[in-house]
Amino acid sequence: MDANRLKTLLEQVRTGEVTPDAALDQIKTLPFEDLGFAKVDHQRALRMGVPEVIFGPGKSPEHFVEIFDRLAGRGNTVLATRVSQEQVALTLTRFPQVEHNPTARTLVLRQGSQEKLGKGTIGIISAGTSDIPVAEEAAVTAEVMGNDITRLFDVGVAGLHRLLSNSDVLRQARVLVVCAGMEGALPSVVGGLVSVPVIAVPTSVGYGAAFGGIAALLGMINSCASNVSVVNIDNGFGAAYVASLINRL
Amino acid sequence: MDANRLKTLLEQVRTGEVTPDAALDQIKTLPFEDLGFAKVDHQRALRMGVPEVIFGPGKSPEHFVEIFDRLAGRGNTVLATRVSQEQVALTLTRFPQVEHNPTARTLVLRQGSQEKLGKGTIGIISAGTSDIPVAEEAAVTAEVMGNDITRLFDVGVAGLHRLLSNSDVLRQARVLVVCAGMEGALPSVVGGLVSVPVIAVPTSVGYGAAFGGIAALLGMINSCASNVSVVNIDNGFGAAYVASLINRL
Amino acid sequence: MDANRLKTLLEQVRTGEVTPDAALDQIKTLPFEDLGFAKVDHQRALRMGVPEVIFGPGKSPEHFVEIFDRLAGRGNTVLATRVSQEQVALTLTRFPQVEHNPTARTLVLRQGSQEKLGKGTIGIISAGTSDIPVAEEAAVTAEVMGNDITRLFDVGVAGLHRLLSNSDVLRQARVLVVCAGMEGALPSVVGGLVSVPVIAVPTSVGYGAAFGGIAALLGMINSCASNVSVVNIDNGFGAAYVASLINRL
Amino acid sequence: MDANRLKTLLEQVRTGEVTPDAALDQIKTLPFEDLGFAKVDHQRALRMGVPEVIFGPGKSPEHFVEIFDRLAGRGNTVLATRVSQEQVALTLTRFPQVEHNPTARTLVLRQGSQEKLGKGTIGIISAGTSDIPVAEEAAVTAEVMGNDITRLFDVGVAGLHRLLSNSDVLRQARVLVVCAGMEGALPSVVGGLVSVPVIAVPTSVGYGAAFGGIAALLGMINSCASNVSVVNIDNGFGAAYVASLINRL
Amino acid sequence: MDANRLKTLLEQVRTGEVTPDAALDQIKTLPFEDLGFAKVDHQRALRMGVPEVIFGPGKSPEHFVEIFDRLAGRGNTVLATRVSQEQVALTLTRFPQVEHNPTARTLVLRQGSQEKLGKGTIGIISAGTSDIPVAEEAAVTAEVMGNDITRLFDVGVAGLHRLLSNSDVLRQARVLVVCAGMEGALPSVVGGLVSVPVIAVPTSVGYGAAFGGIAALLGMINSCASNVSVVNIDNGFGAAYVASLINRL
Amino acid sequence: MDANRLKTLLEQVRTGEVTPDAALDQIKTLPFEDLGFAKVDHQRALRMGVPEVIFGPGKSPEHFVEIFDRLAGRGNTVLATRVSQEQVALTLTRFPQVEHNPTARTLVLRQGSQEKLGKGTIGIISAGTSDIPVAEEAAVTAEVMGNDITRLFDVGVAGLHRLLSNSDVLRQARVLVVCAGMEGALPSVVGGLVSVPVIAVPTSVGYGAAFGGIAALLGMINSCASNVSVVNIDNGFGAAYVASLINRL
Amino acid sequence: MDANRLKTLLEQVRTGEVTPDAALDQIKTLPFEDLGFAKVDHQRALRMGVPEVIFGPGKSPEHFVEIFDRLAGRGNTVLATRVSQEQVALTLTRFPQVEHNPTARTLVLRQGSQEKLGKGTIGIISAGTSDIPVAEEAAVTAEVMGNDITRLFDVGVAGLHRLLSNSDVLRQARVLVVCAGMEGALPSVVGGLVSVPVIAVPTSVGYGAAFGGIAALLGMINSCASNVSVVNIDNGFGAAYVASLINRL
Amino acid sequence: MDANRLKTLLEQVRTGEVTPDAALDQIKTLPFEDLGFAKVDHQRALRMGVPEVIFGPGKSPEHFVEIFDRLAGRGNTVLATRVSQEQVALTLTRFPQVEHNPTARTLVLRQGSQEKLGKGTIGIISAGTSDIPVAEEAAVTAEVMGNDITRLFDVGVAGLHRLLSNSDVLRQARVLVVCAGMEGALPSVVGGLVSVPVIAVPTSVGYGAAFGGIAALLGMINSCASNVSVVNIDNGFGAAYVASLINRL
Repeated sequence: MDANRLKTLLEQVRTGEVTPDAALDQIKTLPFEDLGFAKVDHQRALRMGVPEVIFGPGKSPEHFVEIFDRLAGRGNTVLATRVSQEQVALTLTRFPQVEHNPTARTLVLRQGSQEKLGKGTIGIISAGTSDIPVAEEAAVTAEVMGNDITRLFDVGVAGLHRLLSNSDVLRQARVLVVCAGMEGALPSVVGGLVSVPVIAVPTSVGYGAAFGGIAALLGMINSCASNVSVVNIDNGFGAAYVASLINRL
Repeated sequence: MDANRLKTLLEQVRTGEVTPDAALDQIKTLPFEDLGFAKVDHQRALRMGVPEVIFGPGKSPEHFVEIFDRLAGRGNTVLATRVSQEQVALTLTRFPQVEHNPTARTLVLRQGSQEKLGKGTIGIISAGTSDIPVAEEAAVTAEVMGNDITRLFDVGVAGLHRLLSNSDVLRQARVLVVCAGMEGALPSVVGGLVSVPVIAVPTSVGYGAAFGGIAALLGMINSCASNVSVVNIDNGFGAAYVASLINRL
Repeated sequence: MDANRLKTLLEQVRTGEVTPDAALDQIKTLPFEDLGFAKVDHQRALRMGVPEVIFGPGKSPEHFVEIFDRLAGRGNTVLATRVSQEQVALTLTRFPQVEHNPTARTLVLRQGSQEKLGKGTIGIISAGTSDIPVAEEAAVTAEVMGNDITRLFDVGVAGLHRLLSNSDVLRQARVLVVCAGMEGALPSVVGGLVSVPVIAVPTSVGYGAAFGGIAALLGMINSCASNVSVVNIDNGFGAAYVASLINRL
Repeated sequence: MDANRLKTLLEQVRTGEVTPDAALDQIKTLPFEDLGFAKVDHQRALRMGVPEVIFGPGKSPEHFVEIFDRLAGRGNTVLATRVSQEQVALTLTRFPQVEHNPTARTLVLRQGSQEKLGKGTIGIISAGTSDIPVAEEAAVTAEVMGNDITRLFDVGVAGLHRLLSNSDVLRQARVLVVCAGMEGALPSVVGGLVSVPVIAVPTSVGYGAAFGGIAALLGMINSCASNVSVVNIDNGFGAAYVASLINRL
Repeated sequence: MDANRLKTLLEQVRTGEVTPDAALDQIKTLPFEDLGFAKVDHQRALRMGVPEVIFGPGKSPEHFVEIFDRLAGRGNTVLATRVSQEQVALTLTRFPQVEHNPTARTLVLRQGSQEKLGKGTIGIISAGTSDIPVAEEAAVTAEVMGNDITRLFDVGVAGLHRLLSNSDVLRQARVLVVCAGMEGALPSVVGGLVSVPVIAVPTSVGYGAAFGGIAALLGMINSCASNVSVVNIDNGFGAAYVASLINRL
Repeated sequence: MDANRLKTLLEQVRTGEVTPDAALDQIKTLPFEDLGFAKVDHQRALRMGVPEVIFGPGKSPEHFVEIFDRLAGRGNTVLATRVSQEQVALTLTRFPQVEHNPTARTLVLRQGSQEKLGKGTIGIISAGTSDIPVAEEAAVTAEVMGNDITRLFDVGVAGLHRLLSNSDVLRQARVLVVCAGMEGALPSVVGGLVSVPVIAVPTSVGYGAAFGGIAALLGMINSCASNVSVVNIDNGFGAAYVASLINRL
Repeated sequence: MDANRLKTLLEQVRTGEVTPDAALDQIKTLPFEDLGFAKVDHQRALRMGVPEVIFGPGKSPEHFVEIFDRLAGRGNTVLATRVSQEQVALTLTRFPQVEHNPTARTLVLRQGSQEKLGKGTIGIISAGTSDIPVAEEAAVTAEVMGNDITRLFDVGVAGLHRLLSNSDVLRQARVLVVCAGMEGALPSVVGGLVSVPVIAVPTSVGYGAAFGGIAALLGMINSCASNVSVVNIDNGFGAAYVASLINRL
Repeated sequence: MDANRLKTLLEQVRTGEVTPDAALDQIKTLPFEDLGFAKVDHQRALRMGVPEVIFGPGKSPEHFVEIFDRLAGRGNTVLATRVSQEQVALTLTRFPQVEHNPTARTLVLRQGSQEKLGKGTIGIISAGTSDIPVAEEAAVTAEVMGNDITRLFDVGVAGLHRLLSNSDVLRQARVLVVCAGMEGALPSVVGGLVSVPVIAVPTSVGYGAAFGGIAALLGMINSCASNVSVVNIDNGFGAAYVASLINRL
C-alpha cells in the first residue's frame, strides 16, 4: 500500500465508503513499508545510480545467468564481481554486449542513466602488481557508479620514490582507495601525504604469516594516519562503493 | 499515536474535521511504533515477568544506585548482576530490603507479581567449585524469573561417579544449565545423558591454555551431543534467561 | 537385563533356584545399563521420535549406503546430512523411496511413527541466500522430528524492511532458528523482536575476515539479546534438534 | 625555504649576487620539503582547521601539560583525548579556560578560527550506554573540527524500535559514526537504512568472547552493508576525523 | 551399598525376609557406585599414595584453611599448590608442622604412609632460572608422591654445554619432566638425547610474542622428538603427577 | 672411532707407535660421538626395538620406495605412516611381504627381533568412528613396537554407557591412548576413571569451530584429570610411541 | 633532471636565457628524485650486484616469461623463485641457458658481473629433509648474490649429535641461515653455539598444531639466543638476502 | 680437563704411569666440554666484549642486586634491562657508579675493555615518541657493546617528510635498528630506502587491534622489503645485540 492507496483509503473514509474502524483494521494489518512513508528508505540507493550487483562465487553458471537476466530486466546497470571463467562464458553467449574485465574479474551491463554522479576524482592505488585485481575491481565499481578515476598501481612502500614521484595523483583525488597486501603499510603512508579520506583495502596477497590478508588488515586498522578507514580483505567493491558515496557529497 | 488516536483521526476524516490530505501528512510523519500496531512487540517481555536487569561492572556506586532506584520505581522486580562490594554497600543503605547473594554477586529487589511462570524444574549444574559463582548467577536469575530450580555442583567429568549418582537431578529437569571451565566437557556428557535442552555456559575458570574461557567455549560449541547450545563465557544470567523462556513453554 | 529379568532373578533367589552368590555374580558382571534402572536413559531419545542420523562427509558411497541400510533396518526414520552427489546416487539406487533435498543436502527415509511431536511452529530464518543450505538442513531436520515449520529466508540486517514486514512469522513461532554468516547480526535483531528462545547458527558464508564463520560465531556468542544461544558453524541439524526438543515441551 | 625564498635565490642568481654553484649547493643541502614544492603537503591539514591532538595514555601529568602548553603556543585549538584524572587536574590549574568533558575523557582549548567547516550534520550513534564514552570522544572531536553533530545513543539492535523511531537522525546526517561493542551489529543495521557513508567504531565493551572489541571489529569488517568502513577499537577520535573530512567535501 | 550388603540383601530374599519386589526397589534406587561392582574405580588413586590436593588461586585465606583442615582430617598427605602469602601465613598459624616451599609456592602436610612408590628417579629439568618455580612445583609434587628426584636447572638450549655436561642426570632418570618458557625448545632437545618418556611443561615465562606460554606450548606439541607429551602451561603439578604414575610401573 | 679404536690408539701411545701429540690431534679432530662414550645415546632407541619410521606425506612414490628400501636394508622393522594409495601400490610391487593397513594408512615390514617388549596392555580408545584412522595408526605403531593392545572404539562422551559398559578395557590397561576430535572430552572422562597414564591425541575430526583439531587440543591440554598428557593433532604414532616407552618400564 | 641539468638551468638563469619565474616553474613541477640529490637512493642496491627477482606464484607461464624477458634485457642476473613446472618449461624453451634447480624451485640466468661480493662464508642449515627446499632457495639466492656457501642439512634438534659433529660448519661461517619447521627450535640451539648473526627461517613443514609455520615462527621470535632475527615463513630468499648484505660488510 | 691435561694424560700413558685402560676410563667419564676441543665455543661471546646482562622483570630488588654483584665480580661490563624503580634504588646504594637511563630502563656498570668494536655507525630509529623506551634500550645496548650510534626518533610513516629530511642518518649507518608499534610499517619504508640490514623491533605501543604488538610484528614479518629481519616485541636489547654482531664484521 503506497501513499496513493493510503490517500484513497482516507478519501473513502471521508466519503463514508469505508468506516473508520475498517480503515483502522486495514492500516494495522499492512506491513509498514507499504504505507509509503518509508522510514526505511531502501529505494534511495537505487535512485542514486547504484548498480545491481551480483557476487559470483558459489553460483553455478546457469544460476548466475538467471540472476543476471532478472536484474538486467529492471533496467539498471548490472555489475557482477569475482566472476569465474564459466560464468563469463555463459553470460557472454546470452548478453554479448556485456563488458568483461578479466583482471578485475567483473562483468558490466550498462543500462539506464550513465550520469557522472561523482564530483571529483577517485584515486585507486595498489601497492604491488599482485594487488591489481582487487584495485581493478574497485576501479570498475567506481567507474560504473559514475566517477572519474585515476589509477596508480605498484607504488608499494619499499619503493617510496614511485609513490612520491606521482604525488599529483594523490593531490588531485577527492577520496582515495588504497589496496595493499603483505604488511599493508601503504594506506598509512598515503594517509600521511593527503588530507582527504583514505579507504584502505587489505588484500590476501602474501604468504606465510600474511595469513590471507590478516596481517594487512591489522596493519590498516592500526594505522597511525587518522584519515584511514578499512573494509574487508579483498573487498575492492566495498571500498569503491564507500568512495563513491563520499565523492557524491 | 496509539490505535485510539489513529481511530480518532479517522473519525475526524469521516466527519470532515480533517481532510484526507492532512490525515495522510499526520500518519506519514509519526514514528511507526506509535501507530499502535506494534510489529515490534518490545513490551511483551516485560509482561511476562522478566525482571529489570542491571549489569554492575563499570558503573560507579552512585550511578549504580541511581539506575537501581529508577528501575525500582517501575514496580518490577530488579536484578543486578556482577555487583561490586561498593555497589552492594551503597545499595543496601538505600534499599535495606534488597537480597544480596555474595556468591552469585547479585542483588534482588522483589516487587510486583512473584508468580511461578516456569512449568518444570531448571537444573543448574557446575563442573567445579570455582564455577559456582557463575552457576549461582544462573540460579538467582532463574529463580527470580519464576522457576523452580535444583542445584548440582562440583560434578565435573574427571569424577564421573558424582554426576551419575545424582542422575535424578538430570532426569527431573525440564531444561538444564551446565557451567564448566577448563576443557568444558561437562555439557557434552550431560547432554548425552538427557533428552532435554542443555544450555552450556563456558566459564573463565582455568589457567594457561584455558585462555579465560575460550577452551571451554570451543569445547561446548563443538559438543558431540546434539541437544547443547551455548552462551557467552561466564554468562550465567543469559543461560538462565534462555532456560526460563524454555521452561515457560 | 531389564527390570523384568532382574525381578525374575530375584524370584529365583526367593525360590532357591538360584543361590544368592550366583545372583550376585550375575548382577556384578552385567553392564549396569542392562540392569534396567537406566540412570543413563539413552533410550529415551529414541522413543521420542528422534530419527537415526548419518553425517555424510568422509564416508565412501559404499560405506555410506551400508550404514544407511543398517539404520533403516531398525525401523526408524533415517536422516542423512551433508550428503555428496555420489552418496545420493548410490543410495537412491538402493532406496528409491528416499527423499533427496539437494539444497539441504539431506536424504530422508520415512519409517515408523510420523506423529507431530512439536506443539507449535519452529521459524527457520536465514540472513542471505547463501545461508539457505544451512537453513534448509535445519528445516528438513525439524520437519522430520515432527514439527510444523515456517521459512523466512533472505531477511538480513542490511535490509531490515524485509524482516520487519514479515514480523508475523516471528510472532507466531514458539522457537526460532536463525542462520547467518558474515557478521552474524541477524540473531541479535531477531532476538530483540521476540520473547521466545532463538537458536543462532553461524554459517561459513563470507570471505576475508569472515574466517569461515568465526566472525559470525563471535557475533552471536556476544549477542546483546538475552534469548539467544548458539550452536556450531553451519550446524543447521543441531539447531533444529535443540529447537525440536524445546517445541515438544 | 618556501617558494618565495627559492624565487629570491633564483633572482639573486639572475643578478649575479649568487653564483649558480652556490645556489646549487643551497638547493641540494636543504630538506626537500623546504623547497616549497611540497609534494608532501603536511601543512594542508593544519590550514583546514584540524586541531592539535594529544593522546593522553602513558604520559605523566607534568609531561602532558608541557606538551599541551607547547601545542597551545602554536595558536590552534588543542584537543586531548583519553585524559586521566591527574592530567585533567594539572591542566586545569594551568589552563582554567580549558573545557573538560569527563564522559568523553577529553580536554579542549579553543583558539584560532572556529569556522564551521562541515557542510552538513554528522550523526553520532551508540549501541549501548557503555559505548557512550567512545561516542562522546567522537562527538567532541567532530564538533571541534567544525561540524554540526546530532547524538543518538543507546539504540542497539536488540531494541530496534529505539533506532527506527529516531530514523530522522539517520536521514538527516551527511555521514554517520556508529559505535558498538559486543557483537558490533549496529553499523550493519544503520548502513542498511541509509545511503551515506557509515564509519564504524568497534568498542571494547563486552566480556568473555568479546575479546576486548575483536568480536565487534570482525562483525563490522564483515558487514553485509556496502557503505560501512571501519576504524580501530575504541577509536572515536579517528572515526570523527574521517567523518569530518567527508563532511567538508 | 557394597557387595557385602548386596549379598546380604540377596540372602534376605532367599530366606523370605525381603520380597523380590522390595529388593528390586532397593537396588533400583541406589546410586550404582554403591552396588559394589564399581566400574568407576575412583578409590584406586587414593590407595596408591596420591595426596589430597588444593589449588590455591581464588580462595580466601579463611576458605583455604578450612579446606586444608577438612582434607587433613582424612589422614592423607595434603599438598597445596600456587599458594599466596596470605594463605601460607594463616595456614602456618593453624598447622605449624606444614612445610612451605616459597619457590614452588607449595604447602605440604605429611601424613599416613610415606612409602617410596616410584621405582626409579624422576629428572626435573628447567630451561631458565625463571622456570624454576614451575619446576619446583613439579619437584615437590613428585617427591610427595613417593619418588626420588634429581633437579637439573638452567640448562636452556642457548647454552647447550650446560645440558650436555650433565647428561648423566638425563641418562639415569626413568622419566623426565622438562619445563621451559619462551620458545619451549628444551623438551625436543632432551627428548632426542634420551629414550624414556619426557613430560613437557610450557611455562608462561617470556614476553611479547611468548603470549603467556602459547609459543612454548606450540613448540612442545610440535616436537620433532617422538617421546614427548605435553601438559598445560605452568602445570608443574600435572607433569609430576603423570611422571609419578609412570615411575610406579 | 669407538671405544675399541680409542683403546687401540692409547695402546699405540703406550708402545710408542704414536706420540702423545699425534694422539691428541686425532682425538681433538674427531666428532665427539665417535669417541664411543656416547653422552648422546642415540643408539639406545634402536637397540630397544623401535622400528625405522617413514612419514609418507610429501614424498613421491619413487622417493618413498627408495627410502623404504634403504631403511629395510638396515635389518630392522620398517613402519611407514600416512601413506598414500600411490606409495602403497609402488611399495607392494617391490616388497610383496609388506603389511598394508588401509584404515591406519600404514605399511609394515617386519624384520629382526619381534620380541614382546611391553609388560602390559596398551588400551587404544577412540571417541567416534571418524577418529578410528588415528587410533589405528596408534594401534599399529604400538603393536609393531612389541606391545599387546586392546581396542575400544566409538565410545564418545555423548554416549557414556558405551564407555562404562567396557570399563574392563580401561581397568586392565597399563597405559591408555585416547583419540578424540570435536570437543576432545574423552581423555578427561577416561582419565577420571583410571589411575594409569593417559596419552591424549586430539584429532582433526569435526567442522566449523573445531578448527582442524584445535578445539580438541585445547580441551585436552586443559583437562581437569591430572593423569592426562597430550601429543600433536592426529599424532597417533607419537602417542603410541610414548605409550610404548611407558609400557616397557 | 640530475644535478648537471639543474646546474645548467641555474647557469641559464644567470645568463638571462631563462627567467627566475620559468626556472621556478620547472623546478617545482619535477619529481624530486630527478633533482639528482636522490635522498632516496634506490639505485644503490642495483649497483651492488643484487639480481633482478621474480616471485613465481600467481603468474601465468606466458606472463612469467614476459617479465623474465624484460628483466633479462636490463643485463643483470635474473633470479626467479617458487617457479612452477609450467613456468620452468616455457622459460627453458626461450632461455635454454637458464639454470633450473628443481629442489629450490628457482631459475637463474647469469649475466653481468659475477663478482664475489661476500667476504666470508654463509652457512645454510636445515633441521629436516622437508625443510631442504626452503634452504636450497636460500642457498641459490646467496650464491647468486656473490657468496661462498656451506650447506648443513638434516641436523634437527632431536638428533643433536648430527649438529655437534659438524660444528666446523658453524664455526667457519660469517653469518648463518637456519631453516626449521615444526617447533622451530634449531635457530636457538645454533644461536647458542656461535657468536655470529643467525637469520632464522620458519618453514611450513609440520602438521596439526604446526599451523603452517606459525609454531616455528613463534618459537624463533621468542628465541632465548640473542643473536637470532627472523624472516617470514618459508622465506629462504629473504633470509639469504639479509645474510648477503651482512656478508658484504 | 683441557687440552693440556689430556696431553699430560697421554704422556703418562706413553711413560707407562697410566695404563691405556685407566686412561680410557678417565676420558670416557669426563664431560666432553672439558676435553678442551670445545666444539661448543661458549666462551667466544665473552671474549668479544659482550656485556653480562640481567633481565629485570620478576626479580626482587634484593635478588637483583645479588645477581648484579656476582656478575660485576667477573670484571666485565654489566647491563641490566627493564629495571624497576626499586631495583634501581637498591642497586645505586650499592653501586653508586652505575649509570641509570630512566627512559631506556637500563643500568650500566662499565668495567674492563671499553674498546670500540663496531666498525661503523648503528642507526637507531623510532616511529613515535612512545616507542622511544624500546629504542633507547637498543641505543644503550649498542653503545655498551662498543658501537657508535645515531638516534632518529619520531619519524613514523604518517609524516614521511620527517624521515626523508633526515635521510643522511639512514645513508650513513652500517646497520639499522627500527622500532615501531601500531601497524609497524616503518621498517618496510626504511628498508626500501637503504641497502644495509634492517633489524625491525615491533613495540607494544598501540591500543585495540594492536594486540600488544602483534599487529606490528605481523607487519614486519611480512615486510615487502627484503633486507628486513625481525626480533621479539619490545626486544630493543636483542635488536641491538644482532646489530652489534653485524657491525663488528
